[in-house]
Amino acid sequence: MTLLSSKNILPAGFRATGVASGIKQSGGKDLALFVSDSPCVAAAMLTSNDFKAAPLLVSAAHLGSASIRAIIANSGNANCMTGRNGLQAAQLTTELVAKALGVKAQEVLVASTGIIGKPLPVEKIQAGIPGLIAQLSPQGLNDASRAIMTTDTCPKVVVVSAKVGGKTITISGTAKGAGMIAPRMKMGTMFAFCFTDAAIEKSALRQALVEAVEPSFNSITIDGCMSTNDMAVVLANARASNPVIKKGSSQAKLFGNMLKDVCLALAKMMVKDGEGATKFVEVRVCGAKNDEAARAYAFSVANSNLFKCAMFGCDANWGRIASAVGSAGSGLKARDLSIRLNGVTALKSGQPMIGKKKGLLKAKEILVEISIGRGQGRSVVYTSDLSYDYVKINADYN
Amino acid sequence: MTLLSSKNILPAGFRATGVASGIKQSGGKDLALFVSDSPCVAAAMLTSNDFKAAPLLVSAAHLGSASIRAIIANSGNANCMTGRNGLQAAQLTTELVAKALGVKAQEVLVASTGIIGKPLPVEKIQAGIPGLIAQLSPQGLNDASRAIMTTDTCPKVVVVSAKVGGKTITISGTAKGAGMIAPRMKMGTMFAFCFTDAAIEKSALRQALVEAVEPSFNSITIDGCMSTNDMAVVLANARASNPVIKKGSSQAKLFGNMLKDVCLALAKMMVKDGEGATKFVEVRVCGAKNDEAARAYAFSVANSNLFKCAMFGCDANWGRIASAVGSAGSGLKARDLSIRLNGVTALKSGQPMIGKKKGLLKAKEILVEISIGRGQGRSVVYTSDLSYDYVKINADYN
Repeated sequence: MTLLSSKNILPAGFRATGVASGIKQSGGKDLALFVSDSPCVAAAMLTSNDFKAAPLLVSAAHLGSASIRAIIANSGNANCMTGRNGLQAAQLTTELVAKALGVKAQEVLVASTGIIGKPLPVEKIQAGIPGLIAQLSPQGLNDASRAIMTTDTCPKVVVVSAKVGGKTITISGTAKGAGMIAPRMKMGTMFAFCFTDAAIEKSALRQALVEAVEPSFNSITIDGCMSTNDMAVVLANARASNPVIKKGSSQAKLFGNMLKDVCLALAKMMVKDGEGATKFVEVRVCGAKNDEAARAYAFSVANSNLFKCAMFGCDANWGRIASAVGSAGSGLKARDLSIRLNGVTALKSGQPMIGKKKGLLKAKEILVEISIGRGQGRSVVYTSDLSYDYVKINADYN
Repeated sequence: MTLLSSKNILPAGFRATGVASGIKQSGGKDLALFVSDSPCVAAAMLTSNDFKAAPLLVSAAHLGSASIRAIIANSGNANCMTGRNGLQAAQLTTELVAKALGVKAQEVLVASTGIIGKPLPVEKIQAGIPGLIAQLSPQGLNDASRAIMTTDTCPKVVVVSAKVGGKTITISGTAKGAGMIAPRMKMGTMFAFCFTDAAIEKSALRQALVEAVEPSFNSITIDGCMSTNDMAVVLANARASNPVIKKGSSQAKLFGNMLKDVCLALAKMMVKDGEGATKFVEVRVCGAKNDEAARAYAFSVANSNLFKCAMFGCDANWGRIASAVGSAGSGLKARDLSIRLNGVTALKSGQPMIGKKKGLLKAKEILVEISIGRGQGRSVVYTSDLSYDYVKINADYN
């Protein structure tokens, strides 16, 4: 497997672009289109929020079709809680793109992100489509990535390649994150769009995505809030001409690892670019009863506002970590708890080891290691700190 | 029942005071003592956090004794995760107070609040006790209330009286809150100390406290974080000479309502004085499957950082309310959801009713009414907004 890069490369047969259609008041790019020149096998995971946005409902229906050719995505408006009109707008968007591309509406997925409860200005999307089509380019990934940004400060692109049966296959991914990010086992609040020229069975693609999402997008939290619009999609167009990757094969394992690497890299980029984030914090829990319990402790810490403020303040206040771990009320004993911060033991078997350690948490990246002493369960979760800017961004958003 | 007041009144036979013993670096009052001149029936509820602080473990043991005479409480140090030394320090504190008062150590409760994981400077408490005893006064409730404050900006005192069997009984309560406040069904992060001169059976007192805590301290959240040191106590010394209040009697109901009023008033004071709070937000949910489900939706909204930032920004961004309600993934339909903000319908049966309404949320007190349309379940939860000052207070705390 070649190393991950952030080059502006799409796999063979894919083109993309992003334009400003006027949905964003700022005048920034807000409409992205991703197109495959040939039919794709597709797999997707959507938010588990009850109030799924209209574009997700339309996309979910289209994912049942035999192949997918394109994804149209807008930022600046979530098209969520917009009633029947919102559903019609999402449906119309796919029809307009399909017509322009000469494909079926069922072959087009649609995604939206932005404010909830405002009518989607579908006429702006309609007016933007000719420009989108004209600008589609194999070098358009960065532009498309910019067009799906909301409070993100930078586009997020990851590319990885490997040889399968003598042929080079490539996976390119882009994502947006920043706010309303938390997983609840199905999906964090984000978009992730991945594209590959690999030839792969639908069932193998689906399994690879499910297994890639769990340790990546489902293992991050920025603010513990879950969106109505989350979507992770991978499209595979078989243009690499490799022997078709079958479910359960060693090639499927290789492909799965590639997709995991892409998703994890994108997930970490999201956390680093979390709303107002000044720190990247990795919370590792080991010694829990099982992996699920470890995950619950890790998220309890990662979602604790007090802990996140301490990280912002470079404050080695490990008591807030202990408090968050204990708040589940699962019968832990203090003598079983140990905590390390960036390699320095703060608490060992319930005994404090450091007082104030100025400077310990000045680094941009913080590793919190928590040992519970109850079993073999482990988990890793990634989060950001809670800063003035998070509040500023979210108090002024509307 | 006479109206609630915030007068500096203790029931007959109680005295209190607060002094500065040097535990707080600021030099502020940090040691409070509450004493009854005669033995009290006691009831208490403690945090359900796994890592209960040492003073809670000592107090839990003492609560098994026949009567309680005093509560000693310090701020500035939580005496939590302090190992065997911490337990000895808490035990020693009760022994020192008992000796000075001429009572048994088992008749003294101890409580601590402040930073976790630092040794309790018990020598400062020891040195402070003579001054505490000397200053005990029937007018000492306000001083004691000040001495339990951490990031609270004001002392919290509530008094209520009523006639029982021709005799006037009084309940006085004080509390501290401000941060690390969330309930998880057993207790929010706080102290609440209530004192009454009523004659009441222990079982009736216990029931009154359990029933009072649920709609008050267990219905507030400031930051979703749960402390290791929460404690709610009520002491009854029978000095009002009323006929003893029996469990299940109409007098027990009256007493229960009085205690509920005291606890709810203190809980609301805590939320209004929450760390960095600029708003008091009441979240009412109706139409859920049952009351428990309604409570879960209400807390999901009240603990949403995005929602809380919107409140800080006076932003009627009801989409964040919908998103928080939907994030439980309990199968709700958008068409069943309605939302009102300070009496103005924002969403009616899934249809948006307002766009930007500048000024709607400028008020200090915000009422959010959410209707789910699934049944008769209802719940009310109180919270504050998330402001710059919350971050400032908690990034700079240590």
